[in-house]
Amino acid sequence: MSEQGVMVVISGFSGAGKGTLMKELLKRYPNYALSISCTTREPRSGEVNGREYYFITEEEFVRMIRDDELVEHACYCGCYYGTPRAYVEQKMAEGKDVLLEIEIQGALQIKEKFPETVLIFVMPPSAEELKKRLCGRGTESEAVINARLHRAVEEAQDMDRYDYLLINDNVEQCASLLHEVIQSQHFKAASQKGRIEKIRRELKSFT
Amino acid sequence: MSEQGVMVVISGFSGAGKGTLMKELLKRYPNYALSISCTTREPRSGEVNGREYYFITEEEFVRMIRDDELVEHACYCGCYYGTPRAYVEQKMAEGKDVLLEIEIQGALQIKEKFPETVLIFVMPPSAEELKKRLCGRGTESEAVINARLHRAVEEAQDMDRYDYLLINDNVEQCASLLHEVIQSQHFKAASQKGRIEKIRRELKSFT
Repeated sequence: MSEQGVMVVISGFSGAGKGTLMKELLKRYPNYALSISCTTREPRSGEVNGREYYFITEEEFVRMIRDDELVEHACYCGCYYGTPRAYVEQKMAEGKDVLLEIEIQGALQIKEKFPETVLIFVMPPSAEELKKRLCGRGTESEAVINARLHRAVEEAQDMDRYDYLLINDNVEQCASLLHEVIQSQHFKAASQKGRIEKIRRELKSFT
Repeated sequence: MSEQGVMVVISGFSGAGKGTLMKELLKRYPNYALSISCTTREPRSGEVNGREYYFITEEEFVRMIRDDELVEHACYCGCYYGTPRAYVEQKMAEGKDVLLEIEIQGALQIKEKFPETVLIFVMPPSAEELKKRLCGRGTESEAVINARLHRAVEEAQDMDRYDYLLINDNVEQCASLLHEVIQSQHFKAASQKGRIEKIRRELKSFT
């Protein structure tokens, strides 16, 4: 098993239950750390700096890009979003598996830079169920729901670029499965180079 | 989750406990099927045709290669060994995960032809422990043990071409881990193309 933590990107349609799943992982298992993104958008009512996001200025964001302090960044609706490198690298070095909830553009940037990152797409059991969940919140207008469905159609175009695809039908079960999928990454040969070198040396010393 | 079974190649040094692990999987879980190789070597005392191997003539082996009836084949010490295609494909179509205990040459042939195959290398916790296990059998001469250690040095050169590397320190625990690693394969996006197409169609129908 690798000693370094795994970088885990979790994406999925709005309404797929990504946030609940990540909370469940953090609650149940001690080996996870949650990455908090930084953004240039204004905090919404109830959002706390450092909990939902780090709210920073565009000037600061641009400086972070320039100084290579972000592992990925993307722009949505005129605002920047990015993942600070320092936290992710520190936690991985401590052996924690770091959870990042980000969208496809950022996910692919990370996979390019860190090929051992695992990209997981979470979806509801059906499109019908997705629509039901979006409507069921009861807090959104029809226009917002339709916009999210349109966005889901776009996101579905890139689903096959993810490593794993999980159906979130039952949060408890899906969290267990998500945990197993993530833990299996520690046993990838590619993340155990040190161990491979060690056994090679030891075997040679016998012959 | 994919409906088709997964092809699972298990390799590892002589003495790593591959056979015991596979028996444990077959005993515990109903979703596995064990592929039996065919070979042109003579049966050893106690070996039963169709249990350890299918013992066939060289003429028949060559015919099977020619008719593309083997998913892989290799030659060791002047004898041929190969994996019959029909059984593997039938069991996978039934949704069974098919276990193949084969060596690196065959493993890489299969990965080339069937990229979704999972290659798992099993090893003891250390080279010291491997040597102890080989000696501990008490049935082999020093020359045979040394030959196996030399072979292990060769095999170690290719360990990093496997997908996963598992340490078999405790059979029960390693079998559980092996099972989790194999089961996680069913959730790969690449093996759920049908599901991805379906949700794309459904989402489009809403917009």
